[in-house]
Amino acid sequence: MCQSATLPNATPSETASPTPHTCGCSGHGHTGPAMPAPGENVRWVDAATDMELPAVPFPSRRILEIAGEATLRRVVRQHHRLLRASEIGHLFAPDEATFNTLVERIADYVVEACGGAEAFSQAHGKQCMRTRHFPFSIDESARETWLACLWQALYDTGFPLTVWEEYWQWMEAFSVRMINRRTTKAQPVRISYAEAKTRFDLTTVTAAIGVPPSLLTSA
Amino acid sequence: MCQSATLPNATPSETASPTPHTCGCSGHGHTGPAMPAPGENVRWVDAATDMELPAVPFPSRRILEIAGEATLRRVVRQHHRLLRASEIGHLFAPDEATFNTLVERIADYVVEACGGAEAFSQAHGKQCMRTRHFPFSIDESARETWLACLWQALYDTGFPLTVWEEYWQWMEAFSVRMINRRTTKAQPVRISYAEAKTRFDLTTVTAAIGVPPSLLTSA
Repeated sequence: MCQSATLPNATPSETASPTPHTCGCSGHGHTGPAMPAPGENVRWVDAATDMELPAVPFPSRRILEIAGEATLRRVVRQHHRLLRASEIGHLFAPDEATFNTLVERIADYVVEACGGAEAFSQAHGKQCMRTRHFPFSIDESARETWLACLWQALYDTGFPLTVWEEYWQWMEAFSVRMINRRTTKAQPVRISYAEAKTRFDLTTVTAAIGVPPSLLTSA
Repeated sequence: MCQSATLPNATPSETASPTPHTCGCSGHGHTGPAMPAPGENVRWVDAATDMELPAVPFPSRRILEIAGEATLRRVVRQHHRLLRASEIGHLFAPDEATFNTLVERIADYVVEACGGAEAFSQAHGKQCMRTRHFPFSIDESARETWLACLWQALYDTGFPLTVWEEYWQWMEAFSVRMINRRTTKAQPVRISYAEAKTRFDLTTVTAAIGVPPSLLTSA
């Protein structure tokens, strides 16, 4: 937060004329209800935004047509099997039956988002996924673990290479919106398909997410 | 998240021509590294931003000159006495000595921000307060409790009415930046000085933050 700007003897209608400084900020405009009284040497810190939520490319029907519903469901199941054993396993229900019900519900969502049966929205309505995740504290690091487990699950289930990239592009952007606990001012890391190919492999994923090797490639 | 937009047979260089729908979104542009292959019926969900951080009017020297350093320190102490007994008391160290050290450090920060001695930055550097608060999970509701306790502390310490509004404008905007745990898509509530006067009084604050009456007006 730059605290270098001054409004010498400014009135509420006057525009800031900031003192030159080196904080790297882009200007010293201000918005909102707070408005100091005239004649005060108030230092305005710029308005800003917290997290940028990228546009999300929801999948075409190609993924469902090429991978098939059964494979999509296997990916979700293996993904959550890995998640449960990972550093963010505490975010999921410890009870087996509750966990399995959740996983099948997520599989319903994925199948529907890919153009399949509308089982998820018919049962649970249209509320968005960001809102559904608000009860759970999800930080930037949790998202990266989630993505590492997804890459591994795609590998484990033999996901068709022809639609791997489209699936990844959806999930990678989508996952940013699930972050609701910020631990840094930096924007969430974007991991393109090309970057993921070098970032994630069996060895690094296993080490990064702490999943026991016995759980890998067993879907 | 609007999922109504389609890009029929779009190539990456083509512009979306969204199907008419009623989600209320402003358009269907997209940014970022995700970019589906040509010829796919991808539904783009708009880019967006999460929380808006308002401009913050850091105080002039009027507050320090009129209220005086001793009163500023008393406000901080009473504020934290109330916070510790409130619904967000768990955010503070249970140990008395650790808690008191923290409170005096915060008092140093407030005095310095008001133009007083630079004890805080000399001891702790210039790292911004948003960053300093990242280790602690602070949601929208916690901020409102924090503000209610502040209003009460200003009352309890007999804060000078002539600078009450300026102090409030600073803290109200400043406190938005401490939120790092989002539990809703709505922007944080802004509480102007005029609104605070009707929103907070002894009765409502006591009820809202769960502070025992014995802690009130005892500074």
